[in-house]
Amino acid sequence: MISTVPRNFVIVSGTGEGYTPLNAFDAALGTSGIGDLNLVKVSSIVPPHCTRIEPQAIAPGTLIAIAYAAKTSTLHGEVIAAAVAVGLPEDETRAGVIMEYSALGHKQEVEEIVITMAQKALESRGLKIRSIESRAIEVKVEHDAVAAFAGVVLI
Amino acid sequence: MISTVPRNFVIVSGTGEGYTPLNAFDAALGTSGIGDLNLVKVSSIVPPHCTRIEPQAIAPGTLIAIAYAAKTSTLHGEVIAAAVAVGLPEDETRAGVIMEYSALGHKQEVEEIVITMAQKALESRGLKIRSIESRAIEVKVEHDAVAAFAGVVLI
Amino acid sequence: MISTVPRNFVIVSGTGEGYTPLNAFDAALGTSGIGDLNLVKVSSIVPPHCTRIEPQAIAPGTLIAIAYAAKTSTLHGEVIAAAVAVGLPEDETRAGVIMEYSALGHKQEVEEIVITMAQKALESRGLKIRSIESRAIEVKVEHDAVAAFAGVVLI
Repeated sequence: MISTVPRNFVIVSGTGEGYTPLNAFDAALGTSGIGDLNLVKVSSIVPPHCTRIEPQAIAPGTLIAIAYAAKTSTLHGEVIAAAVAVGLPEDETRAGVIMEYSALGHKQEVEEIVITMAQKALESRGLKIRSIESRAIEVKVEHDAVAAFAGVVLI
Repeated sequence: MISTVPRNFVIVSGTGEGYTPLNAFDAALGTSGIGDLNLVKVSSIVPPHCTRIEPQAIAPGTLIAIAYAAKTSTLHGEVIAAAVAVGLPEDETRAGVIMEYSALGHKQEVEEIVITMAQKALESRGLKIRSIESRAIEVKVEHDAVAAFAGVVLI
Repeated sequence: MISTVPRNFVIVSGTGEGYTPLNAFDAALGTSGIGDLNLVKVSSIVPPHCTRIEPQAIAPGTLIAIAYAAKTSTLHGEVIAAAVAVGLPEDETRAGVIMEYSALGHKQEVEEIVITMAQKALESRGLKIRSIESRAIEVKVEHDAVAAFAGVVLI
């Protein structure tokens, strides 16, 4: 096991543009407030009793676990969106789920889909839904490469 | 360094179906017995003296290291398969390897390939083979998105 | 948080060939000197006061954080390259960045691009550049699958 169980989560999102898709991704992390952290991608569980907190200062370079959706594009005029949803069950002794989705298109569609994904992930576990929190963001390609990013940091 | 060296490994596999490929992947993790863990993907070494154990209860939401193969499909009628192989060397002071493979097709072919991959990975290190353990699984797309998953949890 | 903040980094690179793309990747890790470690991919920050060191012995199977670029190919005659750049700011209290790039083509182009990526990533943070260190490598497909790999291990 890598670590103890996360106790808090933070929902973040942002968009960015840059020289390459990776630069755009890096810029989107910056606008998300996590640009100077080392992200370790996880799939993607909210432990029991893990509660949402607001973004907080974390030392630069810290390795943090994060579930995220990201999409990049270099095609002028294209709109891309990324979204995450956190689904928590009524039974607080059970784990919740994080779902991620990104696609060509607008934030409304992408957010609807990611919310449905979280609902279905809880239902497939036989759990009643206490809450679904979601976050979506979109960006249109204007000049450079762009990225849309939405994530759930597990702390 | 993120952690100490893993001391045990567990081989898991499962299939699932769902609303999206990610829901199917999530369901496949559930049937694999690791649906409520936070998976951190690693590539993919069995440390010396790291031994296989049977699946055991791990607290929901725990971050765990895992090497895995996964494939998803939404094409009605398609068969997909995922497989892992753990290759251990005769010399117990040396590390073993984990190989992952997934593809369209049936578990027999995929398992043969992943076993050969593990053999060749040990041979390319100049190691004699003590054992190869493998696990493969397949699933046919019927209604929703489906996923095939095979993994080696490093604990 | 998974860990404390990394204090040192090591730049590595290598190429390999093998039965499948994953075997080639595994062989490239071997020539990079990290073939027996469990790699956890991160994106991709150099913490303040994190300094470069030479490769050192790490116990086999250890989980390590690494930012990397990798490309594989099976097309006879194709040349592929992978590169990383570490960009450090003049202000030593601020984090640096790691950029990764891989593509069809030769190491010269790929290295130029990754250096520009690191420059732009620092500029987009409003930071003056103290140094950019880069590493690139290329390989031509001859018989089997091949892989080019360049990475920055965070210790």
